[in-house]
Amino acid sequence: MAGALDGIRVLELSRHLAGPFAAMTLADLGADVIKVEPPGRGDDTRGYPPFWNGVSCYYLSANRNKRSVTLNLQADDGQEIAKKLIKESDILIHNFRSGTMERWGLGYDRLRELNPRLIYCAISAVGSDGPDRDRAGVDLLMQAYGGLMSITGESGRPPVRVGTSLVDLTAGANAVQGILAALYVRERTGHGQRIESSLLEGQVSWLTYHAVSYFANGEVPERLGSSHASVAPYGAFPTSDGFLLVAVASDALWRRFCEAIERPELLADACFTSNALRCENRDALAGVLNEILSQDTAESWAARMDAAGVPCSPVNNIDDVLNLPQVAHRDMVVDMPRDDIPDLRLPGVAIKMSDTPGSVRTPPPDLGQHTAEVLEAAGYDTAAVDRFRDSGVV
Amino acid sequence: MAGALDGIRVLELSRHLAGPFAAMTLADLGADVIKVEPPGRGDDTRGYPPFWNGVSCYYLSANRNKRSVTLNLQADDGQEIAKKLIKESDILIHNFRSGTMERWGLGYDRLRELNPRLIYCAISAVGSDGPDRDRAGVDLLMQAYGGLMSITGESGRPPVRVGTSLVDLTAGANAVQGILAALYVRERTGHGQRIESSLLEGQVSWLTYHAVSYFANGEVPERLGSSHASVAPYGAFPTSDGFLLVAVASDALWRRFCEAIERPELLADACFTSNALRCENRDALAGVLNEILSQDTAESWAARMDAAGVPCSPVNNIDDVLNLPQVAHRDMVVDMPRDDIPDLRLPGVAIKMSDTPGSVRTPPPDLGQHTAEVLEAAGYDTAAVDRFRDSGVV
Repeated sequence: MAGALDGIRVLELSRHLAGPFAAMTLADLGADVIKVEPPGRGDDTRGYPPFWNGVSCYYLSANRNKRSVTLNLQADDGQEIAKKLIKESDILIHNFRSGTMERWGLGYDRLRELNPRLIYCAISAVGSDGPDRDRAGVDLLMQAYGGLMSITGESGRPPVRVGTSLVDLTAGANAVQGILAALYVRERTGHGQRIESSLLEGQVSWLTYHAVSYFANGEVPERLGSSHASVAPYGAFPTSDGFLLVAVASDALWRRFCEAIERPELLADACFTSNALRCENRDALAGVLNEILSQDTAESWAARMDAAGVPCSPVNNIDDVLNLPQVAHRDMVVDMPRDDIPDLRLPGVAIKMSDTPGSVRTPPPDLGQHTAEVLEAAGYDTAAVDRFRDSGVV
Repeated sequence: MAGALDGIRVLELSRHLAGPFAAMTLADLGADVIKVEPPGRGDDTRGYPPFWNGVSCYYLSANRNKRSVTLNLQADDGQEIAKKLIKESDILIHNFRSGTMERWGLGYDRLRELNPRLIYCAISAVGSDGPDRDRAGVDLLMQAYGGLMSITGESGRPPVRVGTSLVDLTAGANAVQGILAALYVRERTGHGQRIESSLLEGQVSWLTYHAVSYFANGEVPERLGSSHASVAPYGAFPTSDGFLLVAVASDALWRRFCEAIERPELLADACFTSNALRCENRDALAGVLNEILSQDTAESWAARMDAAGVPCSPVNNIDDVLNLPQVAHRDMVVDMPRDDIPDLRLPGVAIKMSDTPGSVRTPPPDLGQHTAEVLEAAGYDTAAVDRFRDSGVV
């Protein structure tokens, strides 16, 4: 079966994670993605350790299913080549700072004249206008600037970074959503449009209940370790041999939980009869549960809770997760050999489509691996490509 | 201007956050979303504190732009009404456990016969098949099960939950991407299809460089507080009056950073001349920088780094973020009064589209507010609706 985006061409003028991950998602869904990188060094992430047979794992993780073309976008010839490629593209993704593309003659107003069907997606730190528009965006910074770090970590301890670059990934996911919606609109109207996604806006949108709670009562949420502001019991509880996570998110689950731990008398305790009361009496509840759960092993409690349908989980390490039979069953780890990395493995495609399934078809490319192929298909002859190479344009 | 999804009808059979947030995203983009809730109690989140004039902030945060219909899907009449609504829908989103919809006669194979254009999206904990398919999914649990908690927190301290329900939100974002891709495909083929998104798979996919690094070298990543495995200096550094986050993600930035802090001699230090070396000598580098940065205030250092174009940030609290002029400028906080909450405010739409912009049009509905309206439009008369109400079907 063909991919959902078969026949769609994406020009990716981006680096780091948000833009590359967005473009990779479109590539996974079947699009032909041409990644444009600066000659010589390429995407900065090509220099990030650790390396797998000399290739950055960071780079490898966000660039499969793409072709790589080098292009110096600061050179006039580079801009001309880019325009030629843009004429034949459906989607352009960039994550340069606000104003950079315009300086290169590649702003949306100019490109729309060249290609009215173009869907132009700008990924930035905080959006293309507004008082902070020149702010640079990197994941850690935006985890701090966007408030996420302030609510992640233990109570009374310093804020911590979320272990993945999730602000970048959120902005990438929002970009893809805007692009796909625009592609649907284009099928109906014939016109492309400009999409924006930013690291700050993605985070504000994902603050969800924290934002609304703050608007409601003016209280600023704080760090809660592994517990939850509005659900209890919900969090890590110590057993005799390690932490067990328990998530009792409804009153029905509270009943099953009390039965699973063989403490039906808790159901009658007036302090705990509703989620609101359990939140209010959170500390007393934790005291009771810590004492009960520390009397047996995590595995033993988990077996009882699983049998009763009470959600619980061990804290899996990355190796535990990637070796889960469930993960293998769902094709979430795929082998994708490269000549120089014959045992290359990558995470699979999380967006599952029955009739137009996503796929991992080609490994992440070497820098400029497809420069000649793409330029020649765009009408440049071999001699021209050689001249561009000699002059540092590609 | 009309929204991208004007004229698209979504039936949301879901609760908590992943499904509701996915449906809300489609609603923000213009879709008519009918949220189906159990009569009496509705979406579990309606009971989650804190409350704003009696309405749950959690519920308010994920359900604007929707209509609410109550329907007992366990009753035959409820299933018949659902099928009637499904015949007239473009998209169905549910987040029931694997097998539940099938038990109610609402599995995809059955519904496809009723409506071949239907895009059917199942959001689950780990996917609809595989050895763990019956696992329940709640955000905290999946943060632990999917490995994210194991890499979030301080070195040598317990794992912590990410402060937002980001596993739910990721699964919701993946669902929306699959749905929009399917909508695009349907414009070309005329056929709907089945989409799946799961909390586990979303997390595995977002492990990105952690997963590939583990495949490369077998090393299991650990908690690093606010630093980063493959970039340095990157993290929180103490100043004389609080933490400042610094993100020096390239060698060019390292040069600017050393100049901004007026320590050009660091550029000549053989331990720090490349990002790889700075990662290798991370502790020595932190020692040097802690000593330098603790000699002045966060604001003073930030001003110098901003001037030099070095990415840095304070740790903003939620109130800092939501009151940023940039956030207001970008319409990321919107007033959306409800009769009973005249000052209701909600986060704005992060996916920015130039020609078919998203919008916040109506506040989150009361439970069953649109039951009569929707059922009557589907062909039931007032007497029938009253009978359904009396018998607990709606």
